[in-house]
Amino acid sequence: MVERNPNFARLQAGYLFPEIARRRRTLLEKQPDAKIISLGIGNTTEPLTPEITKSLVDAAARLGTADGYSGYGDEQGLLALREQIAKVLYKDLIHAEEITISDGAKCDIGRLQILFGSRATVAVQDPAYPVYVDGSIIAGADSGLQYMTCRPENNFFPDLSKLPRVNLIYFCSPNNPTGAVATKAQLVELVKFACRNKSIIIFDAAYSEFIADRDLPRSIYEIDGADEVAIEVNSFSKSIGFTGVRLGWCVVPRKLKFADGTEILQDWTRVITTLFNGASNIAQYGGLAALTATGRQETQTLIAYYRENARLIREGLQALNIQTYGGVNSPYIWAHFPAQKSWDVFAKILNEAQVVTTPGAGFGPAGESFIRFSSFGRKADVQEAMRRLRPVLA
Amino acid sequence: MVERNPNFARLQAGYLFPEIARRRRTLLEKQPDAKIISLGIGNTTEPLTPEITKSLVDAAARLGTADGYSGYGDEQGLLALREQIAKVLYKDLIHAEEITISDGAKCDIGRLQILFGSRATVAVQDPAYPVYVDGSIIAGADSGLQYMTCRPENNFFPDLSKLPRVNLIYFCSPNNPTGAVATKAQLVELVKFACRNKSIIIFDAAYSEFIADRDLPRSIYEIDGADEVAIEVNSFSKSIGFTGVRLGWCVVPRKLKFADGTEILQDWTRVITTLFNGASNIAQYGGLAALTATGRQETQTLIAYYRENARLIREGLQALNIQTYGGVNSPYIWAHFPAQKSWDVFAKILNEAQVVTTPGAGFGPAGESFIRFSSFGRKADVQEAMRRLRPVLA
Repeated sequence: MVERNPNFARLQAGYLFPEIARRRRTLLEKQPDAKIISLGIGNTTEPLTPEITKSLVDAAARLGTADGYSGYGDEQGLLALREQIAKVLYKDLIHAEEITISDGAKCDIGRLQILFGSRATVAVQDPAYPVYVDGSIIAGADSGLQYMTCRPENNFFPDLSKLPRVNLIYFCSPNNPTGAVATKAQLVELVKFACRNKSIIIFDAAYSEFIADRDLPRSIYEIDGADEVAIEVNSFSKSIGFTGVRLGWCVVPRKLKFADGTEILQDWTRVITTLFNGASNIAQYGGLAALTATGRQETQTLIAYYRENARLIREGLQALNIQTYGGVNSPYIWAHFPAQKSWDVFAKILNEAQVVTTPGAGFGPAGESFIRFSSFGRKADVQEAMRRLRPVLA
Repeated sequence: MVERNPNFARLQAGYLFPEIARRRRTLLEKQPDAKIISLGIGNTTEPLTPEITKSLVDAAARLGTADGYSGYGDEQGLLALREQIAKVLYKDLIHAEEITISDGAKCDIGRLQILFGSRATVAVQDPAYPVYVDGSIIAGADSGLQYMTCRPENNFFPDLSKLPRVNLIYFCSPNNPTGAVATKAQLVELVKFACRNKSIIIFDAAYSEFIADRDLPRSIYEIDGADEVAIEVNSFSKSIGFTGVRLGWCVVPRKLKFADGTEILQDWTRVITTLFNGASNIAQYGGLAALTATGRQETQTLIAYYRENARLIREGLQALNIQTYGGVNSPYIWAHFPAQKSWDVFAKILNEAQVVTTPGAGFGPAGESFIRFSSFGRKADVQEAMRRLRPVLA
């Protein structure tokens, strides 16, 4: 018989979010009438904005016409979209040919793990988005996996002097789950470290649109030299509500080379053309609309809605004397419950307030005693959740 | 510096279709006015049908409303779509929970290679869709790769008695590129072989809707015992023109187990939930519409259009005394040019008739001396192509 791929046996029992969904179902079985509010998974709730909706509707309608129909496009995506991303979001710091369009950042992270293979050594922030670790384990690239602790004590920026040399450094800013945003000085330090060690940074910028502070970098490429050491993944999921529509992108600068001189972009293109077939053409036209002047304005309006939720959560928790981090230039609020287990706090909040959160320990050992609150939700639900939390957490 | 993943160095220079695209561009540089007709890549050309277009338009419009908006869904896809696929396309031979919805068969094949990992041993039909081999090489699962020769001499069905035991057998029917469709007796033999050897068949049924003959199986699960040894991938790309919209599915029956007793579906679900984030919700509603009574009628009308093209190509080539295979229950016509190199014939047809085809050798050693003609195209273009071919191939 066929042997099980041994990498899978090394994975922890469940991916975090399906586990949370199971616990939520269990509550609903016991209390079928419970009105559960989710501040857990970072799932967008607000309708798509008018210009972007119109572009999707029009793109779909065109597919029903002889002149407007299109089948396979380039696996790398519509050139116009790649050009607009380069221009509007990167101010031409990077070039269209260095951008590949995808069905989302999570999927690109999986493909990047295929690109680097099982021999890659990896460092991740701790806590971190579970896909970096779980995906590395599935790829067999987890021997010697390094956890870079990010806690209040170090302002959520790892002590790089303690990090052994690795091939790949996953770094997420604005951070999921801590809500921390790396400063320019911190990213300069990170890039210098990668240059010195000949490591590659995989920079996850999926929440970059939530950065309001003009001094904070929205892309790793704002740092000199980053185009020699960094890959960046990003997504339209959180910025324009495309979590269900599926659209993202990945930047692999031409200057990035393997030890033998091969351009990394060359092998990346091979992955994309061989194992992927392009993002949905309808979604890509939606992405194009998001990068027009009107689309950019609509994006800001949408972000402002969730940012107001973040403020309500942050200030609500602070009023209960709970220490919080993040939630200013980030949709996530990282709340500290010292000397408590995060799965216990999660269960208490779920069972007593019928509010779903995410237990920090699910993001790594350094997430213990923290709870992640997501600001993705309807404002009325957020307000109701904060009302319910008061007696439970006071 | 980061070492290049050695698997990539073992890949042949270019993925077949980008190579063809390069040759086409070269011609256009020399002859900018050339009116090139493509019978090469299997890219759909006809507009989406009315019911399906309407479903996409409506789904996109709903995303712009507070009540109709949806974000992340289950990574495995909409339950309603999984249920309809089970019912309409599999007559409940398999269950909804065994079906995962994806962004296409090519992408699922890549993810299946992640599932089985680098230790899997693999057999592919020769000739075959290049992704089976290239993807296996990228996954590091190509040591001992077995080519199962499929030529007119064996009716395009491999001599299984010569095949050493492997973990995975890729099998495509209707076949890309040969157009051969396996009979029920042949698939019974294949399933028995897999049962005896404890191998897993990865059955690619992406062209199943082109089967007109009622006696030919459209799914491997029509064969007794297949649900213990076979995974099936399929797609809406060719049946309803979703090559650009992106929607497919994969069937992993619960009875499929690894040697240690683990359900393969369990690890497959882990791959899907960890490295994928669901097909576009808009596309999924299109798939649902395709499975209504009206949608099924529209599908048949669309298939009939391409089938008529296949007839024109087949009969046109036969009139030139060229031996052809396929093109009856399949969109592909496999034309034999004995004692000629297929890349030479490809170049002759491209340069003298400005018609793009696909050289058989690009699909594997046994494809040498064959040319694949694709029936995906506008009828008028197909007719014009056949007119141009007459003086060139006569």
